[in-house]
Amino acid sequence: MFDSGIGGLTVLAALQRRLAAESTVYLGDTARVPYGTKSAEVVTRYALNNARFLAARNIKLLVVACNTASAVALPALQRECGLPVVGVIEPGARRAADASRTGRVGVIGTEGTVRSGAYLRALEAARSGLEVRQRPCPLFVPLAEEGWGDSPIAAEVARIYLEDWAPGIDVLILGCTHYPLLIPAIRTVLGTGVVLVDSASAVADAVAAELAGRDLAAPAGAGAEHAVFVTDVPGRFCEVGERFLGRVLGDVEQIDLGPG
Amino acid sequence: MFDSGIGGLTVLAALQRRLAAESTVYLGDTARVPYGTKSAEVVTRYALNNARFLAARNIKLLVVACNTASAVALPALQRECGLPVVGVIEPGARRAADASRTGRVGVIGTEGTVRSGAYLRALEAARSGLEVRQRPCPLFVPLAEEGWGDSPIAAEVARIYLEDWAPGIDVLILGCTHYPLLIPAIRTVLGTGVVLVDSASAVADAVAAELAGRDLAAPAGAGAEHAVFVTDVPGRFCEVGERFLGRVLGDVEQIDLGPG
Repeated sequence: MFDSGIGGLTVLAALQRRLAAESTVYLGDTARVPYGTKSAEVVTRYALNNARFLAARNIKLLVVACNTASAVALPALQRECGLPVVGVIEPGARRAADASRTGRVGVIGTEGTVRSGAYLRALEAARSGLEVRQRPCPLFVPLAEEGWGDSPIAAEVARIYLEDWAPGIDVLILGCTHYPLLIPAIRTVLGTGVVLVDSASAVADAVAAELAGRDLAAPAGAGAEHAVFVTDVPGRFCEVGERFLGRVLGDVEQIDLGPG
Repeated sequence: MFDSGIGGLTVLAALQRRLAAESTVYLGDTARVPYGTKSAEVVTRYALNNARFLAARNIKLLVVACNTASAVALPALQRECGLPVVGVIEPGARRAADASRTGRVGVIGTEGTVRSGAYLRALEAARSGLEVRQRPCPLFVPLAEEGWGDSPIAAEVARIYLEDWAPGIDVLILGCTHYPLLIPAIRTVLGTGVVLVDSASAVADAVAAELAGRDLAAPAGAGAEHAVFVTDVPGRFCEVGERFLGRVLGDVEQIDLGPG
């Protein structure tokens, strides 16, 4: 599994809860984070570079735990990796399509994710005729990293982004792995009448299905091992990461991906 | 001149006003922005990579228009470039040291800049015995890029960062090239009794002195040419950049720096 940085740890946590026997290798590309403000071309280059590192570690399936990279780089990764690849967009879109009664779904994400239109395509594929609206929320990522997801500031930023935009939708896709940390702020604006879809658990289900379908699942009780790599020094990643993973991180090793 | 992205355009604008006869080459490393959250090791690697690109374009002096890179990479750049190198820290520190009556100076910047201690050293060198306090303000950069520098949200964030921290100082160094866009918000907290030092014009003076001292200044009336390069697609850089430069940007060319 790779992510641009730290947000994917919410996906890792869900995966480890769902599939306790599976070993995991997580790569956070902290030397080049964030991806959400960058172009499809650059994000694809970084994604392939990350995937090559993970493929060399003998993985059996690749999870792209970053919405922006899933939105723009999945075809290139599938073409180049020779491995099953699971992104975060399609599982979240399917869950949202199932959850909506009114057929009106909202998607919030980074500028890169929104611009790509990947959620529009995935939602249309999951359930034709949905009415979908999208909104980039650029300040949500720094607010989550500052640890302010449950602050009056975050609630006010959420109000500016969502208050006039959200009425009518009954499902909101949190299309960025940082956004679960903003749920308190989002709830102050949307109340409890809107279903919030966080892709982490949907991805864990998709991975379980993919492994079972290909007969690749680890036997129950297998001794799972977990490794975490980052491309910049681990200090800040470890500090902030524990908020995302919901528990203490083990050893985190810095690596140099070389030219990418 | 290089910067991690767009903020250095405030320095470019000051330089072009001060030295109208000089040609400039600006490189914004938008594929790897931001530097402020990254380690000294990674920022130094990126800075050397940028400097090599500019050196190959036959420049006579290198301006590091990024506080984080100036804070951590200046010695490496001076060692490797074979060119006079001007960073943004020392000129800003000298101006602040001159401006303070009480001897109590505040510095705000990115986490990387604050952690480096570069302003502490530069202020001590400029005027021994100053009382200096520092504060990272991580949300100021995304607020500036969102165009919210003059919003109630920015004022509230500034209040959280500065209200209890600032009393006593009479000079505040804006130790990040994005921060001039937050001046309205900072003023709502500090009022008009604190001198705000923005390094852009101090850097322009330092460059003028350096060129004059080395007899490298262009003759008055020389036809100046200005080129701008970025490492990611130019779209968003051009949009946001005009707010920073204060005028329309000309052609912006995307380049690939290769391994760095």
